[in-house]
Amino acid sequence: MLSTPPERTERTPPTSGLDYDVGSSKAAARIRDAACEVFAAKGYGAATTREIAAELGMSPGAVYPHYKTKEALLFAIAIEGHRNVLDVISAARDGAATPTEQLRATTIAFVRWHADRRAIARVIQHELRSLSDDHFALVADVRRATTAVFDDILAAGVAAGAFAPDDAPTATLALTSLGIDVTRWFPTKQHSDADALAQQYADIVLRIAGAR
Amino acid sequence: MLSTPPERTERTPPTSGLDYDVGSSKAAARIRDAACEVFAAKGYGAATTREIAAELGMSPGAVYPHYKTKEALLFAIAIEGHRNVLDVISAARDGAATPTEQLRATTIAFVRWHADRRAIARVIQHELRSLSDDHFALVADVRRATTAVFDDILAAGVAAGAFAPDDAPTATLALTSLGIDVTRWFPTKQHSDADALAQQYADIVLRIAGAR
Repeated sequence: MLSTPPERTERTPPTSGLDYDVGSSKAAARIRDAACEVFAAKGYGAATTREIAAELGMSPGAVYPHYKTKEALLFAIAIEGHRNVLDVISAARDGAATPTEQLRATTIAFVRWHADRRAIARVIQHELRSLSDDHFALVADVRRATTAVFDDILAAGVAAGAFAPDDAPTATLALTSLGIDVTRWFPTKQHSDADALAQQYADIVLRIAGAR
Repeated sequence: MLSTPPERTERTPPTSGLDYDVGSSKAAARIRDAACEVFAAKGYGAATTREIAAELGMSPGAVYPHYKTKEALLFAIAIEGHRNVLDVISAARDGAATPTEQLRATTIAFVRWHADRRAIARVIQHELRSLSDDHFALVADVRRATTAVFDDILAAGVAAGAFAPDDAPTATLALTSLGIDVTRWFPTKQHSDADALAQQYADIVLRIAGAR
């Protein structure tokens, strides 16, 4: 591990969270995965880089060439997770033809992601206040792009006469909030099937959009 | 402080979280408030009883007669917070006549509580996994009573022909999830007025309920 060259030196500052390099080596990916599990299990504030390294049988010094601080790890996980969400809902949108089908498909993909990937979802949705201001701004770039996917589908549906929400930005807020909050509570005895939940939430979101 | 008699000795075990005595002295209430702020600011896992005591200018030994452990404090806060939510939505329901008015009033009260009381809301909605199993079960009693308020309003509305949700339990899940998640994100630039948000969310919840 110690022979792996540092990845984060002499990098040009990213202009947007959408093209930030989180660390492409396998070693860096393993560290992010371990950190994500530790952050999700005990909360970012209580976690230490020492524990994260121990999860991988590494010394804290072996993590350092990849991520200099615990916050740098949180940032890399947040960028990676939010970009993954954006990719997943963009693909769902691209696979559907009409705004109604797109809203259903993106809602299902969004809910599924938050039900299936609860560790990273919990970290990237609930620990962002621990990021530095600069890092938060880069993560916010990706979050805005995700919001824009839903906003654009709603706007296209309104323009086509397919949707009639009371207020389109609040509809986007509500649908993303429903999906994100799945991470907090899923599963329960009543709702333990992620597919069924995603379908039911898609029905609810179409009601919120005023789909005809 | 040290002269305050212990409150939590020789107490009969509660039969339900609905009648559990969280500690009625002013000293205990001050400790809960300080603990809630510390838990909300840095997360339960990273907080220490020493810090909580220091917030009040107390020694850790002065907290001990009131709450023996950090978990006992979390439990008292969770019971108190959830009972407060239940009281607030029950009062909102009791002040409205029809199921439609009751659903609007309870949604507004629920959203307002989570927007206005973000420190305690964050703690009681996101730190419950740190409770002991016995304590979690007592908190779950109160959560079930809250869910039942919404379930009963929806059922009354369906019976009266006023509501037509796709699935009533999922409608309750969605409306409570929307309200709880306000704690994560509120306020933003776009949504910083808790009253306006509560009204908009009430409109959305009436759509989810299929209000006529």
